Amino acid sequence: MSFGQSLTTLHTPVFTVDLQTVKRNVSQMNQRFKAMGVKLRPHMKTHKTVQGADIMTGRTRRCIEVSTLAEAHFYADAGYDDILYAYPLPFDKVEDCAALSERLEIFHVLIDSQAALEELSKRRLKAGKSWLVWLKVDCGNGRAGVRSEDPESMELAKNITLTEGVELVGVYAHCGNNYYSKGVQEIQAVAKATTNVILDFVDRLKEAGVKCPNSSIGSTPSCSHPVAEMAKLTEVHPGNYVFYDAQQMGIGSCTMEDVAVRVLTRVVGHYPHRNELLIDCGWTALSLHSLGKLPTGYAVIEGHPDLKLTAMSQEHGHIQPVSGEIDFKRFPLGSILFIIPYHACATAAMHSAYYVHSDGKVVDVWKPTRGW
Amino acid sequence: MSFGQSLTTLHTPVFTVDLQTVKRNVSQMNQRFKAMGVKLRPHMKTHKTVQGADIMTGRTRRCIEVSTLAEAHFYADAGYDDILYAYPLPFDKVEDCAALSERLEIFHVLIDSQAALEELSKRRLKAGKSWLVWLKVDCGNGRAGVRSEDPESMELAKNITLTEGVELVGVYAHCGNNYYSKGVQEIQAVAKATTNVILDFVDRLKEAGVKCPNSSIGSTPSCSHPVAEMAKLTEVHPGNYVFYDAQQMGIGSCTMEDVAVRVLTRVVGHYPHRNELLIDCGWTALSLHSLGKLPTGYAVIEGHPDLKLTAMSQEHGHIQPVSGEIDFKRFPLGSILFIIPYHACATAAMHSAYYVHSDGKVVDVWKPTRGW
Repeated sequence: MSFGQSLTTLHTPVFTVDLQTVKRNVSQMNQRFKAMGVKLRPHMKTHKTVQGADIMTGRTRRCIEVSTLAEAHFYADAGYDDILYAYPLPFDKVEDCAALSERLEIFHVLIDSQAALEELSKRRLKAGKSWLVWLKVDCGNGRAGVRSEDPESMELAKNITLTEGVELVGVYAHCGNNYYSKGVQEIQAVAKATTNVILDFVDRLKEAGVKCPNSSIGSTPSCSHPVAEMAKLTEVHPGNYVFYDAQQMGIGSCTMEDVAVRVLTRVVGHYPHRNELLIDCGWTALSLHSLGKLPTGYAVIEGHPDLKLTAMSQEHGHIQPVSGEIDFKRFPLGSILFIIPYHACATAAMHSAYYVHSDGKVVDVWKPTRGW
Repeated sequence: MSFGQSLTTLHTPVFTVDLQTVKRNVSQMNQRFKAMGVKLRPHMKTHKTVQGADIMTGRTRRCIEVSTLAEAHFYADAGYDDILYAYPLPFDKVEDCAALSERLEIFHVLIDSQAALEELSKRRLKAGKSWLVWLKVDCGNGRAGVRSEDPESMELAKNITLTEGVELVGVYAHCGNNYYSKGVQEIQAVAKATTNVILDFVDRLKEAGVKCPNSSIGSTPSCSHPVAEMAKLTEVHPGNYVFYDAQQMGIGSCTMEDVAVRVLTRVVGHYPHRNELLIDCGWTALSLHSLGKLPTGYAVIEGHPDLKLTAMSQEHGHIQPVSGEIDFKRFPLGSILFIIPYHACATAAMHSAYYVHSDGKVVDVWKPTRGW
C-alpha cells in the first residue's frame, strides 16, 4: 500500500474513512456547541486513534473522553491530558486510575455507588492531588448511574464532597435511550428530558449546599440536534459523530452524505440457483450488529438499495435482492461494493487499520488501540 | 502480568484459554482420525495463533488450513507449510497466492468457478510449479461451492485437469449446515450425507477419467462424531474443536467440560430497581453472536444457570435472573464471573491476546494474527 493509491486497489475487506467527511462532521459539531457556549468533550470510543483525536480536539490534545483504560493510557502516552474515563470505576483498575490521576494534569473518573467512593478514599493520591469524580446519573437510559429521584443519590453526592482527597467535579448522563428515537422530534424530546433531569439535580445539589460545578450529557443523536436547554450544561460528550453510520441515519442524527466510513468488499461468488452473491465481508469485517433493523439486512450497500446483506459467516457475506432477481452481469466476480455499516463503533472495532482517503485516494492509515 | 499469576488477578474483561482442555480436545480429535486412517488438517480460523497451531499439528508445522491470506502469511512466516487457503479464490489476491505457492512447498487454493480457473491460468507459477487446486462443492450448506449434480461441476473439474499449470488436488466441502443440528443423530445424518455426496462425486470423476486424488469434508460437529463413511475420505478439516463453545454444546459436539475458553468479567454495578447487575463485558469482549439461541441470553455464565446475559453495549453487559430476584450479596462489586462464549471463533476475534492457563495460573499469552 502506498499513499495516493486508489481505494479500489486495496485488498478487501477493508475499513475506509473519508477524511473530508470526518473533518466536516467535527467542524459542524464544534461550531454547534461553540455557538451554545458549551464545552465539547469528544468521546474516543468510536475510532480510538490519535489521528481521529487530533481532528476532534483541533490538535489541542486536551478535553477528551474514553471508554477503556487502554484508551486512557494510549492517549496519555500520545501527550493528551484532561481525560475523562467514562466508565463506572472498575475495582480492579483503581491503582491504574490513581497512577493516571497522578501522572496527568486532569484525569476524571466516574462513579455511581458508595462502594466505589470507598475504593477511592482507600487510595489517596500523591502530591496533594484529589480524585476528580463525576457522579453518573441514569436519566432513563437504564445502564449505569444513580437515579436522581432516589434519596441515596443526593446522599452519595454529599458524601463525595465530604470525603477527603475526593472532589465532585460534576454530574454526568449518557442518553443512550436516544438510540431508540426516530427523527429530530423524538431525539430532542429525549435530549430535553435528560438535560432537565441533570439540571434539576444540579439545582437540588446547590440548594443542599453541595458544590458541583459541572454537568454533562452525551450521545450523538442528542448532540446532532441539541435543544436550547443544553446551553445550560457545562459540557457534552458525543463520539460517534466523527464517523456516523446507518444506525444514526435511521435515528435521524445525520444523512447518508455525513457517513464517513465504508467497508469495501469484493464479490467472490455467483450462485444463481439461490439468487445470491457472496462477498468477502463476513462478521470479522463488519460485526454482527443490526440484523432486523434495516430493510437491507445487516448494512446498507451504497448505490444498491435493491440489495440486502442477509447473512454473514466469519469471512463470507450473503447478498440477495430485496425483491426480484439479481442481474449477475452487474456484479462480476472481483467487483467492488461499498458497505455502509449499521454501527460504526462496532465495525471499526473489527479492524486494526483504517484506510483514510480523500476523494478515493489513500492519504493515511490510522491504527486504533484495543483492549482494556 | 507474570506467568504463574492467578487468572482472577487479571484485569477484566479478559479472554482465557485452558491449556489442558485444549490439549485434550486436540488429542481426542487426533486419535479419532488416526484410528479411521484419515488425515486431519486442522483449521486455524478459530484461534489464529502459532501456539495453538503447534498443539494442533503436534509441532510438525505441516498440514493446516486457513481462512484468510493474513493467516497464510503468518503461518508461512512461522515456518509452516502445506497450507490450504480454504476460501473461494479472491481475484484481488491471485498474485499473493502465487507468491505463497512459489515460496512454500505446498500451498493449496480453492475455486468454485470457471472464472477463477481462468485467473489461475493467467498467472503461471515459476520454477515449473503447478497451482494446487481444490474444487469446492456445496453439499447443502448453501455458501460457496458448485453443486455436484450440476453438469457444469463435472465440466469445471475436467477443465482444471486440462488447464496447463494447474492441478486438481481434491474436492472439498464444508458441512456448515451441521450447525443447525441438535444431537449426535442429526450431526451424523449431515456428516453422512455430505460425505456421500463428495465420495459419489469423486467416483463420477474417476469414471469420467478425471484424476482427483483427495476428498475432504469439515466442521467440528461432523468431526466430533464421525460416521464410518468418513474413513473413505482422504482428509478432514475441523477447527473450532480446539476451543469448543456454548454453540457446540447445544449442537451436541461437546460437553461443558470440553469448552476451553472463558471471558472473565467483573461486576461493575448493582441496579436493584431493575433487578440487574452490570458487568464489564460488552460486545467488544464477547461479540454480539447468539442472542435468542440460548435460554441464558448471549452466553452461559458458568456456575450460574439462573443468570441471563440479556443485553450488551460496547463495554457493559446486562445480567438479569432467568426468573425471580437477584441476590446482590452473592455478586459484590468487583467480583468475577466466568462467561462461556456462544461462538468461540467470534469471541476470540475480539481479543488481541489470549491468557492461557493451567489450573487457573497463567502459563502463556497467545497473540493471534488479524486482518486479511
